[in-house]
Amino acid sequence: MIHNFSFFRKWGMSFFGKIRAVGFKVIKEDSRTEARLGLLTTPHGAVETPAFMVVGTLGTVKALEPRDLVETGAQVVLGNTYHLMLRPGADVIESAGGLHSFMRWDGPILTDSGGFQVFSLARMRKITEEGCRFNSHIDGHEFFLGPAESMEMQRVLGSDIAMVFDECLPYPCERGRAEASVEQTLRWAVRSKEAPHADGQQVFGIVQGGVYGDLRRRCAEELASIGFDGYAVGGVSVGEPEAEMYRAVEASVPFLPKDSPRYVMGLGVMRQLAECVARGIDMFDCVIPTRIARHGTAITRHGNVAIKAAKYAFDQSPVEEGCDCYCCRTFARSYVRHLLACGEILGLRLLTIHNVHALNRFMREMRAAIAADAFPEWKERTIKETTTNEQCDNAM
Amino acid sequence: MIHNFSFFRKWGMSFFGKIRAVGFKVIKEDSRTEARLGLLTTPHGAVETPAFMVVGTLGTVKALEPRDLVETGAQVVLGNTYHLMLRPGADVIESAGGLHSFMRWDGPILTDSGGFQVFSLARMRKITEEGCRFNSHIDGHEFFLGPAESMEMQRVLGSDIAMVFDECLPYPCERGRAEASVEQTLRWAVRSKEAPHADGQQVFGIVQGGVYGDLRRRCAEELASIGFDGYAVGGVSVGEPEAEMYRAVEASVPFLPKDSPRYVMGLGVMRQLAECVARGIDMFDCVIPTRIARHGTAITRHGNVAIKAAKYAFDQSPVEEGCDCYCCRTFARSYVRHLLACGEILGLRLLTIHNVHALNRFMREMRAAIAADAFPEWKERTIKETTTNEQCDNAM
Repeated sequence: MIHNFSFFRKWGMSFFGKIRAVGFKVIKEDSRTEARLGLLTTPHGAVETPAFMVVGTLGTVKALEPRDLVETGAQVVLGNTYHLMLRPGADVIESAGGLHSFMRWDGPILTDSGGFQVFSLARMRKITEEGCRFNSHIDGHEFFLGPAESMEMQRVLGSDIAMVFDECLPYPCERGRAEASVEQTLRWAVRSKEAPHADGQQVFGIVQGGVYGDLRRRCAEELASIGFDGYAVGGVSVGEPEAEMYRAVEASVPFLPKDSPRYVMGLGVMRQLAECVARGIDMFDCVIPTRIARHGTAITRHGNVAIKAAKYAFDQSPVEEGCDCYCCRTFARSYVRHLLACGEILGLRLLTIHNVHALNRFMREMRAAIAADAFPEWKERTIKETTTNEQCDNAM
Repeated sequence: MIHNFSFFRKWGMSFFGKIRAVGFKVIKEDSRTEARLGLLTTPHGAVETPAFMVVGTLGTVKALEPRDLVETGAQVVLGNTYHLMLRPGADVIESAGGLHSFMRWDGPILTDSGGFQVFSLARMRKITEEGCRFNSHIDGHEFFLGPAESMEMQRVLGSDIAMVFDECLPYPCERGRAEASVEQTLRWAVRSKEAPHADGQQVFGIVQGGVYGDLRRRCAEELASIGFDGYAVGGVSVGEPEAEMYRAVEASVPFLPKDSPRYVMGLGVMRQLAECVARGIDMFDCVIPTRIARHGTAITRHGNVAIKAAKYAFDQSPVEEGCDCYCCRTFARSYVRHLLACGEILGLRLLTIHNVHALNRFMREMRAAIAADAFPEWKERTIKETTTNEQCDNAM
């Protein structure tokens, strides 16, 4: 498969059998920051960037249905190759005709490569040039996952965007290990690119290198010369100070093609999204909105709110004033708090709806600010509002 | 408050402030069985009977939203006085303006009296003529619940139908104890009737008496002479053989006013609903559809199906062929089975939607059969289909 970096260079079958062009186009660049508006076109529709992608680990965004995703404004769902390989397995998803058809989500899907989970969740057995032998975190069953297996699984899943198989380094990590890991990641990136892909499936490279700026640069330059449809900055938000995270982004972005989408993996805090967009990032994913919902915490434009707290027992206002999600336009904090206190499924579901809606609305506002040449002012105000308001319960 | 048994005898404020007549009217009597079609009017709308009422213990039908209840054809939600008294407590619900407003369900609500839970869940301390002192099953906190407290709680909840405070006997139970209990239940019924009620709130008496037909008759006759808006047969499905259950219904119904609604508490198996309707029953409630959904079992017209079973891993057919619920018209068994196998919330939710929809559709079919003078034939065929089909996984 040959890659070059012009818009509309690949063609794929969409869910409805129509042929659509796929690729990325920068629509507008902010004059005062690296922020930009873009349009990422996939066989399952277009994505306005900057975009937040909601995580649907096991073929479901936890507690939500496809119709909820539409209602909350979700543009892309992320599926996890490692988890889906273990449960239900490639054969089940293949027999359903792929992940879109299995979970009945006909919008864009991005799948990670499984690299992150193999190194963080599984009991590792042996790493070779071909990949990793590991034991499942569920039942100890032995599996092998390398670039060939990961890309084959992602081909079966039929995702619109596949990620290369990479090694995600822990923090802290010694320079010698980081150097060797970057080289491994680059060799695996080549193998991932050369593997067969689904029709219209775009493949993104992943910049690693830990906190070492020169390694990030080398990895970014090398990936750009191999040529991918998009580029991710991986190995951030793994325990390093926030300033290190931004430095890792700054050390990578300038060496990636300007006309390709850039994605920081694993971020979902409003402030961090705004800071990364200002540094030229287009895409994000994170379990935060769905995970903290299940712990009883609401994401709002004025900080996180631990709705489960006793102080909301009689509160007749919505979870977030002014929010037009189903939860906020229907129920009071008092009721949602009661559901959470009793461990009722509906409580988790309502907060999940709210949190996904809140992050998607946040991204819409951000795009509008860029479009209106008001991004720097919007960013400054937003970071102040979301971070310093006294309503913030610091529940994360 | 004066009760007499004519249609439209009470008047109450509805959720929207409109005045509506409340009461029960028999629309049609089956010529070959005791089955009948009826219309039960409440301040929050009318209920076509025979009707199944879905249980919303803690102010939520587990895993469902009010909009799901509308979509699945639910007519009445049952709230549990005991559970809501403990969590969130009367003060929280009162500050929300009652249970309808708290949970945002503007259809009819029936509340039980808490008697059943006090005797089955709580650690009893002392029973007196005024009621029971008990310790909460949650945190051991001490409460008192008798007819006065139960009716006051139900007044605060603002349910459309309140149940009298009664004692539910275990099975088996010696005659001496059953006799004393019936007398206690009758004295509590008088106190329950005399207590203040919410505007437009109807009050139902409960026939107890265990397996003793003469006690059932005495209880039914005495309740009828006290005079209630409707009558329940309680203390069934507590472990007795199914034949005993029907005998308890047969021993009670003939002595209850023909023009009042009759309700058997705690039944949700299709066969049992059909058998009881044939014996003159109009209303039912049960946790079965929602509870077995959370255990991975689907209710279908051809028996229960344990969707979680490995044999459905590749099954691309819907949970129930021909069903038009959101689950069946959207997803395949293979996917629902995967969700259940992974403990995903969405799996429980989809089966709950299906099961509630299935029982409501079953009741609609039953009403149509009565209307078409075809109830006995429909009942015979239905009982055969739902009970003996090989698809039945006996998962209950």
